[in-house]
Amino acid sequence: MSDVNPKKKLEQLGKKIVDDIIGGKSPKVDVPIRALSNVKFNEKTKTLELGNKSSERAFFNVGHVKKFSQTIEVAKVSHQLLTLDKHASLRDVFYMAKRTLPGTDTNLVDEQTESDKAIEDLEVISDLSREQLNINADKKGSVVGNVVIEDMGDAIDWSKLGSGGWSIPSNVEDIKIKKVNADFVLYMEKAAVWERLNEDKFWKKYNCILVASAGQTTRGIRRLLQRFYEEFKLPIYVLCDGDIYGIYIYSVIKYGSISLAHAAERLTIPSVRYLGITMDDIEKYDLKKHFIKLRENDYDRIKQVSEYDWFKDNKAWQRQFKMMKTYNAKVEIQSLSSKGISFISDVYLPEKIKNKEFLD
Amino acid sequence: MSDVNPKKKLEQLGKKIVDDIIGGKSPKVDVPIRALSNVKFNEKTKTLELGNKSSERAFFNVGHVKKFSQTIEVAKVSHQLLTLDKHASLRDVFYMAKRTLPGTDTNLVDEQTESDKAIEDLEVISDLSREQLNINADKKGSVVGNVVIEDMGDAIDWSKLGSGGWSIPSNVEDIKIKKVNADFVLYMEKAAVWERLNEDKFWKKYNCILVASAGQTTRGIRRLLQRFYEEFKLPIYVLCDGDIYGIYIYSVIKYGSISLAHAAERLTIPSVRYLGITMDDIEKYDLKKHFIKLRENDYDRIKQVSEYDWFKDNKAWQRQFKMMKTYNAKVEIQSLSSKGISFISDVYLPEKIKNKEFLD
Repeated sequence: MSDVNPKKKLEQLGKKIVDDIIGGKSPKVDVPIRALSNVKFNEKTKTLELGNKSSERAFFNVGHVKKFSQTIEVAKVSHQLLTLDKHASLRDVFYMAKRTLPGTDTNLVDEQTESDKAIEDLEVISDLSREQLNINADKKGSVVGNVVIEDMGDAIDWSKLGSGGWSIPSNVEDIKIKKVNADFVLYMEKAAVWERLNEDKFWKKYNCILVASAGQTTRGIRRLLQRFYEEFKLPIYVLCDGDIYGIYIYSVIKYGSISLAHAAERLTIPSVRYLGITMDDIEKYDLKKHFIKLRENDYDRIKQVSEYDWFKDNKAWQRQFKMMKTYNAKVEIQSLSSKGISFISDVYLPEKIKNKEFLD
Repeated sequence: MSDVNPKKKLEQLGKKIVDDIIGGKSPKVDVPIRALSNVKFNEKTKTLELGNKSSERAFFNVGHVKKFSQTIEVAKVSHQLLTLDKHASLRDVFYMAKRTLPGTDTNLVDEQTESDKAIEDLEVISDLSREQLNINADKKGSVVGNVVIEDMGDAIDWSKLGSGGWSIPSNVEDIKIKKVNADFVLYMEKAAVWERLNEDKFWKKYNCILVASAGQTTRGIRRLLQRFYEEFKLPIYVLCDGDIYGIYIYSVIKYGSISLAHAAERLTIPSVRYLGITMDDIEKYDLKKHFIKLRENDYDRIKQVSEYDWFKDNKAWQRQFKMMKTYNAKVEIQSLSSKGISFISDVYLPEKIKNKEFLD
């Protein structure tokens, strides 16, 4: 990403608008449509992407002027941030963009959803990611492994961070990954499982990098995983609960999310593999007694996910969805603890990885 | 805490039960009652604490036998963990304790709430904290500052961790704080504010330690703050949104929480000070335009919190609660960003700290 200059790109956008004004034209921008109707699954690249539909947004149009002005305002805020070499959170940008228009009692933005949407629009207009615009979302998650990075002038060795690990920032664009000695990356949705594996020194024994969020995977974590794949060709394995929500976490990392289809190219990792918990693990590891019964909304979600373009012709996954419904149950990663506190580190993960029991 | 041997304490508990059995008596334990009726505010120590009421729990009592057995089971699990020198999450302990009693279709525990309660009972029975029992809860939060710790054999310098910081583990009992060069600790409820202050190198300029969770303060973070106060006499300042939930976060750090009154002594920091956002900041920093209107449940919560023993005679706080209701509004920390992205680092915090504008 070092070949783009985000600040210059924003200046070009500004110059185009100034040219419109000087030329006596209504200033306008083209905004690709980000609704489901314009999102499609690219069979070749195996990612969600935006279609070609776009809509014009003009200043001299009563229906457009507010959104037009909001988009230009967040561009201004982003330009300020890039000039100052500082980053802001989505909430900060909302407050920075929120002001009363002179001589009126109208605010440029009243709710954060408005500035968030304007930022997403700016991403597609400028072809810059929110991270490149110096705008961050959630900070979450921890990482440990035989890796040395450089960040804000510090050399940070992820193998010497004790029980805590490195706290993953919301934006990993500027970190330099200097040295990697690892065979794969293991990402898990649960911080408690990460603590288990770190205490057991799993990453040392099996020469890997351990990454955890807590629930939903942040964009920072997705970019970090992607960088390990793209810059170091490391396989990425995903460890989630054996339920439809765990599988959706995997799906987002692999294919992208519908709401962020415009950013999919930057954030997907088509080669990522699902390691567990699978429905087959239930028999193999005798987990039936730890079943948690499905509810109505679990069934709805299974139906929804199983019908997604990227799952609907995938036999291995359709088999999993069917087994979920037959079992009428879900199983958590931590049910493995019933077989011994370190069963996951000593038996489950080594076996699965050795036997290459992945779902793709 | 190095003078107690948790494993021995559990063995004494086990021995007492064995003695009961050998002596032909019904095995039993005394469990201090942990309901609101037995929680009081100690005016002298300024912490919540358990009263003297306790109830006997006996094996040969149909109403007691399940809870008795659950308590002994989690003691067994904890003893295993201490023997193996490993830690487990609350969820792990649930799965480790969950088993079907031989010859029946009854599980010892069916829901995690049961094993959680049994662990809390074990804490009061044994006078050991859950952390000392090697049982952990959430891992959350980041820290940065001029501090060197030792953890799992690693020397970790919190001043050399770039934009991420050290990821705070769920259990900080075993870390050794080796070197501290800081005048105070600033704890904030929002990770995004922490990223702002870290990017601005606030901790370098003002010689402090920055700690953030994301929302609710975990027990790990509370213990970490407490250790800085107890071992290094550092003042602890709290930075939260200007609303009743932010004030309750402060209240829990300072006085303890009702549900954990039995652990209060271990987790409170009576000297902690509230730095902001206060209702007085609203006029001073012109934040009225960023008001978020209160809802019905905000009013209910203000009433509840203002009537707590530790707030009800505190004039400064009662004034704040009254102003909240008069303004009919709350204000977020990040509304300060409307005055410039680094206004919080360059103006707000330095002014407040210099002028000692704290609420106690």
